[in-house]
Amino acid sequence: MTLTAICHDEARRVLGQLRQVRPLVHCMTNDVVQQITANVLLAAGASPAMVMSEQESKTFAGIANALLVNIGTLTTPRFNAMKLGVEGAIAAGRPWVLDPVAAGCLSWRDACVQELVAMKPTVIRGNASEILAIAGQGAGGKGVDSLNTSNEALDVAQAFARRTGSVICVTGETDYITDGERTLTVSGGHVMATLVVGTGCSLSALVAAFCAVEKDYVLATATAALLAKRAAEYAHQKAQAPGSFHTYYIDGLYEINTQTL
Amino acid sequence: MTLTAICHDEARRVLGQLRQVRPLVHCMTNDVVQQITANVLLAAGASPAMVMSEQESKTFAGIANALLVNIGTLTTPRFNAMKLGVEGAIAAGRPWVLDPVAAGCLSWRDACVQELVAMKPTVIRGNASEILAIAGQGAGGKGVDSLNTSNEALDVAQAFARRTGSVICVTGETDYITDGERTLTVSGGHVMATLVVGTGCSLSALVAAFCAVEKDYVLATATAALLAKRAAEYAHQKAQAPGSFHTYYIDGLYEINTQTL
Amino acid sequence: MTLTAICHDEARRVLGQLRQVRPLVHCMTNDVVQQITANVLLAAGASPAMVMSEQESKTFAGIANALLVNIGTLTTPRFNAMKLGVEGAIAAGRPWVLDPVAAGCLSWRDACVQELVAMKPTVIRGNASEILAIAGQGAGGKGVDSLNTSNEALDVAQAFARRTGSVICVTGETDYITDGERTLTVSGGHVMATLVVGTGCSLSALVAAFCAVEKDYVLATATAALLAKRAAEYAHQKAQAPGSFHTYYIDGLYEINTQTL
Repeated sequence: MTLTAICHDEARRVLGQLRQVRPLVHCMTNDVVQQITANVLLAAGASPAMVMSEQESKTFAGIANALLVNIGTLTTPRFNAMKLGVEGAIAAGRPWVLDPVAAGCLSWRDACVQELVAMKPTVIRGNASEILAIAGQGAGGKGVDSLNTSNEALDVAQAFARRTGSVICVTGETDYITDGERTLTVSGGHVMATLVVGTGCSLSALVAAFCAVEKDYVLATATAALLAKRAAEYAHQKAQAPGSFHTYYIDGLYEINTQTL
Repeated sequence: MTLTAICHDEARRVLGQLRQVRPLVHCMTNDVVQQITANVLLAAGASPAMVMSEQESKTFAGIANALLVNIGTLTTPRFNAMKLGVEGAIAAGRPWVLDPVAAGCLSWRDACVQELVAMKPTVIRGNASEILAIAGQGAGGKGVDSLNTSNEALDVAQAFARRTGSVICVTGETDYITDGERTLTVSGGHVMATLVVGTGCSLSALVAAFCAVEKDYVLATATAALLAKRAAEYAHQKAQAPGSFHTYYIDGLYEINTQTL
Repeated sequence: MTLTAICHDEARRVLGQLRQVRPLVHCMTNDVVQQITANVLLAAGASPAMVMSEQESKTFAGIANALLVNIGTLTTPRFNAMKLGVEGAIAAGRPWVLDPVAAGCLSWRDACVQELVAMKPTVIRGNASEILAIAGQGAGGKGVDSLNTSNEALDVAQAFARRTGSVICVTGETDYITDGERTLTVSGGHVMATLVVGTGCSLSALVAAFCAVEKDYVLATATAALLAKRAAEYAHQKAQAPGSFHTYYIDGLYEINTQTL
């Protein structure tokens, strides 16, 4: 299948839409990354809101423009609230993104993920081990780090996209975004981003934000990936250690504009 | 009703009291802003402690010098623990601050907020949309961002203060702090603070800290607001993007002293 | 009993082991410090994973190389998950570290801590007030700050280590690490670290990481303490206020290597 590098002109147009609309993203995400997820969305030009209760998630998913479901630090009440959130998003016609954190090493979580996959996420964003795991091709992960390269997961991702109807985004040194027919690639970035917790999780939130403003979900997802990679490059130009890199990564998401993306 | 700009000499005196007493603030706040709330209190000269369980919140509210109740990421167990915390604070004669995050767009949350308002917070701190909503004058919010200017909420805030007995603090480009008879204003700050998650929520924690050392709660609240605005100005002198702004905002809370406030 | 300063050559060897193995640390920690705990582990050369549910904690403790149990923001479901995590760690022969945050001021928490102490932690890391409290010698704490110096807790720590079989680490201006027979000391650091939330809690996570790669747990713990103190010194050379100090503290954990420790 042909791989096509993302068209920068199209990405710039989509970024312009994000900055104009400033979509509200309903984030149901894990306890470790809530702060960075909110700050990433704010810096990039979206508006975050974390609403996590069973009483509120369904309604709020219809108020927001897109929903993120991230299964890190999952608990039973949170999983129940997430399913209600997804129902609300579907009922309101909102895109929703699944981030299957650490899929493949714990059976309860894997069962929960399959329930969510069956609810047809607009996009699923994970590292190679996570995507292999949810597609039933994994060797078993070891926590949150990938044991595979994104390239190793490409064929599986494309087949899984065709089977599920979800856009699949496998991130790594190169990011692959596919609906099973068309596959966009995004390269660049910097490995130091893996030393800052939440850069991957917050990318999934950015994907949700871009899907709120661009109905070509492959392009929307690739634009989010491109912005994250450019911000990592911006950060590494200014910082050689992860504390400072974290600060400048947020700065980069804000500074990069429709001219410089 | 006359609006009076905060007297800087009085604010400096109150800041001196905070730095001397270093009050312990019991924070019952949302999952997104726990880290920045703790760091804001530490930098400003107070001591944070997050105690969130039903088993502990009532007792701890009497050990601490003030209590913060913030309804972001609310769940049923947390709401129950909060009400016990408020009971403990009242029984021990401690001031307590309510931050009605995202009031006005979700019915369960709004019902919870009204229960808390009925428990007579010392201070209620919110943006204009939140204050209008809890006073029954809102048009319905959309997440955590205000759709109104603080000025538009001023009359409602003053009437609501008289009706409830709480000091009402409406923050925005200008902050208004009123007990219904006297209204102080605080201006300045920088809009980039709205791109860092938790600057509003942590201001409510600062209000609690200042109320622990100054019984004139209008003045105490206005002093917290002034310190936050000065720290935002300090940050913007050093940083033009939100990642760096966040870092320098914390630095500013620490660097600003009774001479430079 | 003789106090011996940590041998820097041994500490450098242990740091080299950490950087080579990159152990996976299962963190069951409080809501305030999850982000900094993950970032501290990543910068220092370990891999964090926060797994907090009753369904997953026991299994995951056997997948990871070490477990951290920190009782801040404790709730009943979380306490149950923690005990299962500890059972999993013990069954798999993994070291586990207890951080008894705010022990000594709340009776429910103190009862929980005693249950955990009875499960024989590999290491217990706390400030002087916390260690005195769990040993039954405390005067009652006031939140998370220590009211005692680490030196005042030394005799109690040594006796408590002999009684429980756990290595006890009392941190303060000087850190003491003892198994009741041998006591290592670590000095240096900078007091500004106490103005950044989570520097203590994340040190406990570092202790778990080092215990995963060095079976002399007194040495492993002292190496973690030394790395944290050197990172604080690195940070203070670059920053005089806590926001910037936080950033450079993370940088320092990454920059310090087996030559410069």
